[in-house]
Amino acid sequence: MFTLIKQYHAARRGRFETVHGVIETPVFMNVGTAAAIKGALTALDLEEIGCQVELSNTYHLHLRPGDEVVRDMGGLHRFMNWHRPILTDSGGFQVFSLAKLRNIKEEGVYFSSHIDGRKIFMGPEESMQIQSNLGSTIAMAFDECIENPCEKEYARDSSMRTVRWLTRCKEELTRLNTLEDTINPHQMLFGINQGGTYDDLRIEQMQRIAELELDGYAIGGLAVGETTEEMYHVIETVEPYMPQNKPRYLMGVGTPVNILEAVERGIDFFDCVMPSRNARHGTIFTSQGIMNMWNVKYERDPAPLDVNCDCPTCRNFSRAYIRHLFKAKEMLAMRLAVIHNLYFYNHLMLQIREALDQDRFSSFKNSCVDILGRRI
Amino acid sequence: MFTLIKQYHAARRGRFETVHGVIETPVFMNVGTAAAIKGALTALDLEEIGCQVELSNTYHLHLRPGDEVVRDMGGLHRFMNWHRPILTDSGGFQVFSLAKLRNIKEEGVYFSSHIDGRKIFMGPEESMQIQSNLGSTIAMAFDECIENPCEKEYARDSSMRTVRWLTRCKEELTRLNTLEDTINPHQMLFGINQGGTYDDLRIEQMQRIAELELDGYAIGGLAVGETTEEMYHVIETVEPYMPQNKPRYLMGVGTPVNILEAVERGIDFFDCVMPSRNARHGTIFTSQGIMNMWNVKYERDPAPLDVNCDCPTCRNFSRAYIRHLFKAKEMLAMRLAVIHNLYFYNHLMLQIREALDQDRFSSFKNSCVDILGRRI
Repeated sequence: MFTLIKQYHAARRGRFETVHGVIETPVFMNVGTAAAIKGALTALDLEEIGCQVELSNTYHLHLRPGDEVVRDMGGLHRFMNWHRPILTDSGGFQVFSLAKLRNIKEEGVYFSSHIDGRKIFMGPEESMQIQSNLGSTIAMAFDECIENPCEKEYARDSSMRTVRWLTRCKEELTRLNTLEDTINPHQMLFGINQGGTYDDLRIEQMQRIAELELDGYAIGGLAVGETTEEMYHVIETVEPYMPQNKPRYLMGVGTPVNILEAVERGIDFFDCVMPSRNARHGTIFTSQGIMNMWNVKYERDPAPLDVNCDCPTCRNFSRAYIRHLFKAKEMLAMRLAVIHNLYFYNHLMLQIREALDQDRFSSFKNSCVDILGRRI
Repeated sequence: MFTLIKQYHAARRGRFETVHGVIETPVFMNVGTAAAIKGALTALDLEEIGCQVELSNTYHLHLRPGDEVVRDMGGLHRFMNWHRPILTDSGGFQVFSLAKLRNIKEEGVYFSSHIDGRKIFMGPEESMQIQSNLGSTIAMAFDECIENPCEKEYARDSSMRTVRWLTRCKEELTRLNTLEDTINPHQMLFGINQGGTYDDLRIEQMQRIAELELDGYAIGGLAVGETTEEMYHVIETVEPYMPQNKPRYLMGVGTPVNILEAVERGIDFFDCVMPSRNARHGTIFTSQGIMNMWNVKYERDPAPLDVNCDCPTCRNFSRAYIRHLFKAKEMLAMRLAVIHNLYFYNHLMLQIREALDQDRFSSFKNSCVDILGRRI
């Protein structure tokens, strides 16, 4: 159940109760694609860096180790030893971005595995069955993520098919949740808004899926090549039609500044591979701006990555040491950098929540929006 | 200062006091070549898995980040945030195994960096200067590690040159330790026994270096292709000529069984990349034998890697999860496996020390020597 605690214009401070614990929103979900955070982090590390929700990918886990294996091991929570909320995506995005030879029909999508070419069919029912086997806290609806730009006619057909698929997702998950041996009988379902960059399609589709009374609603199909302004415009367009009493999730977004802007526009949930992927390449988010750890100026720098940070990396290691680890191609460089960047994101969300609690979100946002995006 | 606490035939239970804390022997040193344990472990992880001594490589750190950088950062202890004993090797082994175009003269070795081809000279004085900049607890003498097999004449010339080099090492380190701005004025020096597989050369060289009254003595040039029997024979040959009141270090050895056999023959210090390297490839040491994590029989196995193990990996994760991580090429697989294997080695040494303390080393060794080496 979602409770709206505070509201400042569109920005929302909320609390989402789940069977795996309470999620304080706005929240950033930490991405662990194949039931592991890239950069050698365990679920225990996630606890230490303030992660509230872990996000895993249905497509990847279906292929490897197989959702039946995860189910036999007691579900994803037990498998990876993480006992707080987990959101699983539907597999839709990966089917459209990774899989080969895909063929979209009304019943679902035929495609070949990107790992071994094996032919696979995934439709709304299959996606729900897989996510039910994983036993995540929140399942995402199976949708088509169209390319950008996309012809309007295709965008319309696709977004309407996504609505029909959503109805089937809801029916199937309701059925699965009542099975005696289901891993998580309280599994929730979020619907996904699509419609490309067409305002009328976005609004119409949002109105339709709002009627389905789901546990939450996501805006999908963004952060796929459109400009930042187009992305903010879509949020502003759709937001008035999203139920007030349900959490809203902006999928795959984004930079710290994107998140601040989207919170201001009424978003509650975020996820993005950016903090962990950038970390693995030596790009570090700090309270002063963005650092490149390969820069020679850090060769003898005894300071932590971020002097204002209390993460395990900053409490224990210097810029000089971490730069050395990157240059020496030591795996430890990635681990220390990922720990820091994820902590930075989780801590930013905490600061956003505190600012909302204390009625100073606007001044908080203004104080850091110029700083967080600059390269230092 | 080394104190012999117990002795059972040749096997020794000892205690070595250093400026960075006490080392209980027999001890296995955990290898962190470039000031980081491969597999994304930090110095804090080493503390958690019972490591007493960390070992870093002079050659690697001289090339990257440069020992002057480490010195400017306050020495290796501060650089990597490890405050217990560190042993640095001399660079000799890597000069002979990694470097290109090497040319050995009386003054030292001319060679090219394996990273960028840069021409470098390293002799006894240079090795001591680098190790002094690193500020390790124990510096190793600069020696030539000859190939196996090796003509006797070359082995004799080389082992005598290693003696002359050792005298220069001792003089130079004594000088460096008295400098006002030296990182560790209490840095100790271990000499190295060489002589290939020739008993008379080994004994003669050992007698010569024993006269130098060093802080400890190592047997080098083993684990380079000779048989296990040849290795044990060299230890048995040299051991009677090693000072009783100084620690003995068998360089680069070995399997759990090798360690048990060498402890029985009077060795106190060990190091080897085997536990961490094997871990990264999915080969796991356990109290029941050696496991290959790629084996399909672990696909749904909920047990920890070793049911008798109390390491952070075994306390939290299943074989099924770790096997999945290896198959999905997740870096986390390596971290969890390395944590386990190093813990296993450190814990084996603890068991050996307890057995010596309790006068049951022989029965302990017999109870596990057949089990630890078998593939399960």
